[in-house]
Order: sequence, then C-alpha cells, then structure tokens
Amino acid sequence: MIKTVEWTEEGVRMLDQRLLPTEEKYLMLRSYEEVAEAIKQMVVRGAPAIGVSAAMGLALGASQSVGTSVADLEFDFDYMCEVMGATRPTAVNLFWAIERMRDALRRAKASSEDVVEVKNLLVAEAQKIFEDDIKANRSLGRFGGELIADGSTVLTHCNAGALATAGDYGTALGVVRGARDAGKRIAVIADETRPFLQGARLTAWELQQDEIPVTLITDNMAGHVMKQGKVDAVVVGADRIAANGDTANKIGTYMVAVLAQRHDIPFYVAAPISTVDLNCPSGEEIPIEERDTREITHVREQQLAPDGIEVHNPAFDVTPHDLIAAIITDKGVARPPYSESLRRLFEV
Amino acid sequence: MIKTVEWTEEGVRMLDQRLLPTEEKYLMLRSYEEVAEAIKQMVVRGAPAIGVSAAMGLALGASQSVGTSVADLEFDFDYMCEVMGATRPTAVNLFWAIERMRDALRRAKASSEDVVEVKNLLVAEAQKIFEDDIKANRSLGRFGGELIADGSTVLTHCNAGALATAGDYGTALGVVRGARDAGKRIAVIADETRPFLQGARLTAWELQQDEIPVTLITDNMAGHVMKQGKVDAVVVGADRIAANGDTANKIGTYMVAVLAQRHDIPFYVAAPISTVDLNCPSGEEIPIEERDTREITHVREQQLAPDGIEVHNPAFDVTPHDLIAAIITDKGVARPPYSESLRRLFEV
Repeated sequence: MIKTVEWTEEGVRMLDQRLLPTEEKYLMLRSYEEVAEAIKQMVVRGAPAIGVSAAMGLALGASQSVGTSVADLEFDFDYMCEVMGATRPTAVNLFWAIERMRDALRRAKASSEDVVEVKNLLVAEAQKIFEDDIKANRSLGRFGGELIADGSTVLTHCNAGALATAGDYGTALGVVRGARDAGKRIAVIADETRPFLQGARLTAWELQQDEIPVTLITDNMAGHVMKQGKVDAVVVGADRIAANGDTANKIGTYMVAVLAQRHDIPFYVAAPISTVDLNCPSGEEIPIEERDTREITHVREQQLAPDGIEVHNPAFDVTPHDLIAAIITDKGVARPPYSESLRRLFEV
Repeated sequence: MIKTVEWTEEGVRMLDQRLLPTEEKYLMLRSYEEVAEAIKQMVVRGAPAIGVSAAMGLALGASQSVGTSVADLEFDFDYMCEVMGATRPTAVNLFWAIERMRDALRRAKASSEDVVEVKNLLVAEAQKIFEDDIKANRSLGRFGGELIADGSTVLTHCNAGALATAGDYGTALGVVRGARDAGKRIAVIADETRPFLQGARLTAWELQQDEIPVTLITDNMAGHVMKQGKVDAVVVGADRIAANGDTANKIGTYMVAVLAQRHDIPFYVAAPISTVDLNCPSGEEIPIEERDTREITHVREQQLAPDGIEVHNPAFDVTPHDLIAAIITDKGVARPPYSESLRRLFEV
C-alpha cells in the first residue's frame, strides 16, 4: 500500500512527490512549519492528502507546544491553524481538517484541564482523520465502481489516486480500483497534466505499481482520443465542490468536461464528502490559486520558454455542474440537481 | 526578419528550432539526405516550412547529382523525391512542393537537354517556392488581419509563425501581424503545445522578438481563459485541409476548436492555398503521424514519466469543418460551405 503521509514517533513522514517517478524518497518533517512548507511546495498535494497532512502538522505542533496550560496551548494552536490555512487556498479539505482539529481541541478542553491529555487527544484526532480518509475512499470506490462497466477505459486528469489521499485507494483512482476489485477489467488513459505533471509522474507511477493498464497522453490529446472512441468514462477528483455542484479541480479539468460532453461520455467527479463546501454557493466564490510562473517556463532545471516571457499559471479551474453526470462520495452518489442531492448526502 | 530556411552557395542553411529559445543556432545542410533528416528530426517544422525545405533539399540533391544526362538526373531525382516524401506524412505542403519540383523538371526537360541548365532551373524553382511562400503569407496576413478587431486578444496553438514558414510573416501569426500592420493593437495568448512545446519555445520567442504582447499558458488552460472572457478569436495554422474544410493541425487543435465553439469565439484556420488538398475528400483520409514516445516521457534529458510506461503520441488531430468560422488563405477567405468556397479559391 502506498503511504502518502504517516504519523510516526519522530514526526510526520511524507513521500516527496516532487521526485517521483524517478526517485522514491521519504521526508521526516519535525515541526508544523515544516509540514506547512511541504504542503506549499507540493511535496504532498491532492485535496484529501492536504487535509490529512495539515491535521498531522497541527497535532505535531500541538504536541511540541511549550505551553503549560490548556489556554497557552490553545493560543499556540490558533496561530498554527492560521499558518496551515495560508498554504493552499483552493482545497477545502484543508479548512475542513483544520476545523475538525479545532473541534477536537474544544471537546478535549471540555473534558480535561491536563495539557498533556489534550495534546494526546489532538494526536489521536489526526490519526483518526487519516483512518477516516482511507475508509471514505474505500466506500467511495465501491459506490463509484458500480458506475463503471466491465471492459471500460477511464480517462483521468491530474492525480486523484492514493498519492492524493492518505494512501491506499484514492478518489478518482479509488473508483477505478473499486471497479477492478468488483472483478471488472478496467484500463486508464492518464492526462499528463501540465504544468506539474501529476498525471505523468504520479498517476502513471501508482497505476503501474498496481498493475492497472495505463496509457499516458498529453492533455491536448484528450479530445482526439475521445473522438476515436477510446474513452468510456471520465473520472476526476476535486479540490472543492460548491453547494450547486460546481467543481474546482486541477487546471484542465474544465476542458476535459467540455470534451466529454461533446462526445456523450459521462463525466464523474469523485471526492470524499469533506470536499463539498455547502457554505460556497457556486464556483464563482471558489478562490483560484495562481502559482509561480517557473512551473511553466521550466521543467526542473530545463528552460522551456524565453527569458522574461509573461505567463499565466492558475492551478485550478471550475467545471460547471451541468457538465457533471454524477458526484461520487463516500456517502453515496449525488445526481443533478446537486443543490438538493449534495445536501441530502450530509444527512446520511 | 526571421529566416527559417535559406538557400546559400554552400547548401541549405536552417535555423535549428529544437534549440530555441535558449540557443539560436544555424545548421548548414550539405546534401538532400541531410535536409530530409532535418525535416524528420524537426530541426524545421510547420507545413509551409517543410514544403520550402523539401524543395531546397531536392534542388540541392539535383545540383549534386553526378548524372551526365537529363535522364540520369531524372532517375536520381525520382529517388530523392521518395526519400523526401517519407519524412513527415501529414503535411500536404511537402507533397505539393515535391510535385512542384517534379513539374519544374518536366518543363526544364522539354526546353533543354543540357543537364547543367536543368539543374539551374531546379535551383531557381526552389528559390521561387521560397519567395512565393513569403508573398503568400503577406497576402494571407492582409486578408486575415481584416477579420481581427482592434484591441483583440488572439489565442493560438503550436507555432504557425515565421518559424513555420520560409520566414517573415507566418500563417496564423501572419494574421496577427497583418492586423498589427493595419494599425490594430493585438495581444496573443500562446498555448505551450505539448509535447514538442512549439508554443513555449517558438511562438513566445518570435512574438517577443517582434514586440507583440504574448502570454504563455499550458494547453489545458485554454478553456479557463476563454471562460474568463480573455479570448476574442482563435487563429491556428494547418498541416492539411481536406476538400470539405476538415483540418489536420498540431495535436490539441481539435480541443481548442471545441472550446471556442462553447464560448462563441470565432475559430480561424490560416494557411496558404498549397495546404488545401482537394484530392482529400475529408479529414477521415488524412494520415496522422505517430511520433516517438520519448517526446512525451522526457523533456530533453529530463525524465517525466516512469520507465516502461505506455504512451500514445499522435502528432496531429483533425478539426471538423463545422467548428471552423473561416479558412484564411493567400487567395482570400473561405467561409462555409467549404466544399464550394475552397474550390473557388483555386480559380482566383
């Protein structure tokens, strides 16, 4: 099983995804600042993995707090939450995980005045968030797997696999694994996903490890392979799903959704319920992170574009809900109209 | 003026486009085999530039032929035409240029039995093809420039600029230059165009040289910038245009056309009339070149994907005629239905 991020006695252990697929190296992060920096630098990425990592970072920070009272700890903890929340603005799972840790602190505080006990409860909560993520994706994979017919080829964008979550199944690739584990033969076409190449580096790598047949294409080939009849379904992950079903996900997802519609191919979004943000009415309100231009002008040390060129680098785009055939969550499958179906899933 | 390819006393001088934008290096090709290899290896690329280069390669080969009779020369020449024709199957300009050189040989043979004179006529014909290409693109740029409103932002894919032709104006960028030279303010958004990155390396470079404002994006951002209202028109080049208007162009062009349609943005194809293949009824009949997988798995020496991964690398796709608002040629602008309008342009 791929372990994206893990709690250890020494600190938070994280697979450095920037080095994949040529190098499999783990970092040991020994402070909450190191965890925050790792999230920002995309050592770890993928909305659920960011949430789990942030929770572990906060648990680590809390356990290292020198405060001798619960009030001192709370003061430190609030500051850590702010640092953590400033790492990646689009992924709602980040804020969801921070909120869950804050809740845990509130509950702990109500039950104990012993600062050590409160710290232990925070560490336990982070580990619970990790375990819940694994379970949620297994559940999501089962629900989603039912939507994929035997013999299908699934096109996916970015990496919404084990590497985008706590590990194991993943979200979009959880659906692929769910179908496979239900006995179906499934092949994958992976968009390489510029500029960060999560498809080429991560999706290709983890499917290869898992012996699921995968063919790599550049993002601009998605339309061509659909036109050739090679794609039966599209499954992608999500960084934030608004109350009306509009979905922010890796840049290029919108393009894939438009192409799928033209070719009458069902376009599915797969994400744990923690990715759904009922406080966000539509995609208009989702903040889109703009990243460093060097991600586009260079691949590692290799320069691809002329010096001084102007570059636009939004990390995400928004796919409007009317292009989405279903939203697959760990609580079940939502169908349009999403403003009703998503809300109902929270009551499950 | 950018000189993509040039006839010199020593041989065919060619800008090595593989090294741009970090290095501006010219190769001197001293045999027709070297020219054929340069086309295959994409030292030069772009349908019109391939046509001009092939003509120069054949002129070079003919001038070096040891045949002492016109019949001997013709025998050698036929073989050279076959070698040249096997370099890149999709660009029809290649076959058009070869045919034009064959015609020149036929005419020369009818007027002279002197092998030296026939060789000189072939060299002159190649130079004429070069000059005609420059002129055609100036004309195309004037026609196309009229379609672009003052203050427009034009999105383009791949490089259909000076570097894709004999030099000077280019085709799609010829339209941009035509609009600019008519006094309009025009900005460009350039798709980087994976896997060979002609947009990042070539379009960005030549527009920067020309001081035309350009913003570089990854291919998968095209839909996002259109959705944001940042694009007023799309202009792309072509490698082959079928009689019904279906257009083969760099992989990803189809995706851009589908996105343009969704956003009600006019999608224009710009190409000299020599790119129109009336013998090809529709896009179905256009052969699509499949290139080396290493173009996708590596950027120069940098490995992007795991070892042994399966890769699909079609160099082109076909955009159906119903997604094209107009086809801009040196003979005028064709509008739907193309099966009539394209044929009429040949009579101009």
